[in-house]
Amino acid sequence: MNKKYKRILIANRGDSAVRVIRACKEMGIETVSVYSKCDKGSFHARLADYSVCIGDVQCKDSYLNAYNILTAATNYKVDAIHPGIGYFAENADFSELCKHCDIDYIGPGSSNISLMGNKAKAKKVAKECDIPVIGDDSVEINNYEECLQYAGKIGYPIILKAVNGGGGKGIRLVYREEELLQAVEQCLKEAEKVFGSGSILVESYISHAKHIEVQVLADQYGNVIHLGDRECTIQRKNQKLIEESRCTTLSEETRNRMYQGAIDLCRHIGYVGVGTIEYLLKDDKSFYFMEMNTRLQVEHTITEMITGIDLVKEQIRVAQGEPLKLMQEEIMFQGYAIQCRILAEYYNGAFIPDYGKISRYDMPGGFGVRVDSSYEVNNIVTTYYDSLLCKICCHDKDKVQAVNKMLRCLEEMQLEGVLTNKEILISILNNPRFLTGDYTTTFLDTLKNYKKD
Amino acid sequence: MNKKYKRILIANRGDSAVRVIRACKEMGIETVSVYSKCDKGSFHARLADYSVCIGDVQCKDSYLNAYNILTAATNYKVDAIHPGIGYFAENADFSELCKHCDIDYIGPGSSNISLMGNKAKAKKVAKECDIPVIGDDSVEINNYEECLQYAGKIGYPIILKAVNGGGGKGIRLVYREEELLQAVEQCLKEAEKVFGSGSILVESYISHAKHIEVQVLADQYGNVIHLGDRECTIQRKNQKLIEESRCTTLSEETRNRMYQGAIDLCRHIGYVGVGTIEYLLKDDKSFYFMEMNTRLQVEHTITEMITGIDLVKEQIRVAQGEPLKLMQEEIMFQGYAIQCRILAEYYNGAFIPDYGKISRYDMPGGFGVRVDSSYEVNNIVTTYYDSLLCKICCHDKDKVQAVNKMLRCLEEMQLEGVLTNKEILISILNNPRFLTGDYTTTFLDTLKNYKKD
Repeated sequence: MNKKYKRILIANRGDSAVRVIRACKEMGIETVSVYSKCDKGSFHARLADYSVCIGDVQCKDSYLNAYNILTAATNYKVDAIHPGIGYFAENADFSELCKHCDIDYIGPGSSNISLMGNKAKAKKVAKECDIPVIGDDSVEINNYEECLQYAGKIGYPIILKAVNGGGGKGIRLVYREEELLQAVEQCLKEAEKVFGSGSILVESYISHAKHIEVQVLADQYGNVIHLGDRECTIQRKNQKLIEESRCTTLSEETRNRMYQGAIDLCRHIGYVGVGTIEYLLKDDKSFYFMEMNTRLQVEHTITEMITGIDLVKEQIRVAQGEPLKLMQEEIMFQGYAIQCRILAEYYNGAFIPDYGKISRYDMPGGFGVRVDSSYEVNNIVTTYYDSLLCKICCHDKDKVQAVNKMLRCLEEMQLEGVLTNKEILISILNNPRFLTGDYTTTFLDTLKNYKKD
Repeated sequence: MNKKYKRILIANRGDSAVRVIRACKEMGIETVSVYSKCDKGSFHARLADYSVCIGDVQCKDSYLNAYNILTAATNYKVDAIHPGIGYFAENADFSELCKHCDIDYIGPGSSNISLMGNKAKAKKVAKECDIPVIGDDSVEINNYEECLQYAGKIGYPIILKAVNGGGGKGIRLVYREEELLQAVEQCLKEAEKVFGSGSILVESYISHAKHIEVQVLADQYGNVIHLGDRECTIQRKNQKLIEESRCTTLSEETRNRMYQGAIDLCRHIGYVGVGTIEYLLKDDKSFYFMEMNTRLQVEHTITEMITGIDLVKEQIRVAQGEPLKLMQEEIMFQGYAIQCRILAEYYNGAFIPDYGKISRYDMPGGFGVRVDSSYEVNNIVTTYYDSLLCKICCHDKDKVQAVNKMLRCLEEMQLEGVLTNKEILISILNNPRFLTGDYTTTFLDTLKNYKKD
């Protein structure tokens, strides 16, 4: 007998909280949202059936305050907690705490979260599944001296990563020995502060590569399917800016090997829920396991558009104990979808976050257009949280048509009160190299001029 | 050698003008919008590359002022005029005028418009194609006495229709002889005033029927395909309120006969462009040709969602002389889509149009949701034009899921400054009979209470 959740608490804010609330409403599940003091009038707080203040503006006092969240969940007698994206979304301890409170955590089991959250262990798992790993030469270090010695051995450039890091944080690239001391110090500090562990991995850095990832979905009965790939190569500061599904330059052979690797890995560790296996793809078509995200991703939207499958609803169904109704053979990929992240930030030699009250918020519409917002008009964007205002997705028959649609959408959008990265997105989409797929993760650095004339 | 339009003028306002502008932008075609004095700051005027005032607020002085529109088109050297939906969209004279100005009219040829615009002739065509016709007993009358005599012969209820009418206007239902005089007088007046001819058709009225229509698309080379059916049974004042694609209660056999009739009819008259064949479907599964709309329809949106085909782009391509690239066998119908028309009107014993400045305009978003707006925030809704504020469409695997999504969307929408029909829509969607498909065009009259408690 499957469970049927009656009420879910969403332990997050912004677009991911809104996304989960929408899915719940459509499934007839009541929702409890949580908000920090400055998010009182926020979009996600308005949409939920119930809304609870869980603390002060700092994340540690509210969205990362497990005690307050679990108190709210208990008071409101919820059946399950959805962690959204970020905060507690890949936190094994939190998932265990939920279990202790007799509340389901909508996500994989804590052992899977721990295992794949540790970059060194995750690589070991990938190797066991015969997936090539990046940084096969990686070692874990705890101080500058160890790092200096090892870097001398493997040669520059190298990359430093917090062992428990994720979401593009806790990462430093080092091109020369002179930069090493500062980078190690910063990275160790961030690893300790944000991820609770002062260990970092050092490995050779592949500087010209594409970021390709595979979406997976698995139930509690060993059924695992993939939902195709996404290209997330266009990044700034190691964070994704534009995502595409599917990648337009992958050969069927490479693509299928990536899919098979992802499925093998999930079967190997007994993974349950939605997840993403991230690969780096080099010019020579070789690819390497980078990491696995044991949660929903910001860019799950475009996979939904080309497959017609609602990933959040599937995630909830799997958590309720339902077996997958979808077979791999039934998954069809139709057309091409692209997502642009609209951020409250502007470019002025660097990317600077902006904040303020949103005085106008007219989103684009029409055929093949999807908008997932973090805010609505009159909401206040602060610097306490990430800068994502909304995600605009366009779906069409092919990349050229979808990109034309996206350009139309960006032109149509009227967002006032905070500065945005709209012009940067437009210059990327208008770049001929973007259309042909001729780019690596350093693409944005090679664009001389972000601003429209 | 096909033409390639460089610039198109859209001779319309509101959602249909916005729809065409979006398609043009995505195709790289420049747009010229036209607006009346009170539409200066309107959404469609903002979106176009160029925007021209064509006269005063009354339709006859602006959106129905052919001279002013053609002057703007000539001044701006456009290659073609798209009539949108309404106004000149089914006007053979206007299409001829365009030809005289050496400008393409994006729509069927004037002879097709004239033929199918005349309800008596259209029926004759349908009969020639072996399609059952409704009101096989219909006669054309010009005064009350003729009507009284004929009604006595065929019995009540009867329906009066302006011979050249359309869009739900110029129609009167008469249930008893006592109502006849007033109805005939009003209908004759409206027929003369709105459609330029004082003739009306009288026929028996089928009071319990569904409105089912078939979308067709044809090129200049005799290729004709259909894009499935839409159910538009939920109406108020003979105007569609909720549309669905495809109808969930049609048998495959009936559906295919409707499709074949539509295709036969288009082939028979050499139809070119997008068009819709409307049928009435009775309880006993018999169906009857009602009329053909020789233009795009408000509800084309849901057909696009289930087929993935952009009807406006296809319409423009066909007008440019391109052959259809789509074969009937390739058209796939995926899931189910529903459209709700959000109107600036409220119910107070009758449906009363509202007007005012839109002070808040937050549209719903997320997966499977499409919004086509006539307005944006700070626009002014007047009583000069129709009351359509926007169309919300939801696409999902089946009717139950799509209706749940629509209810979520209607709840999420925040539209302030004018009163809307949102609560009426919600009560229809929540009615168990709506989900099972158990309704005819009189459904709304049978709902006792429109208002939410």
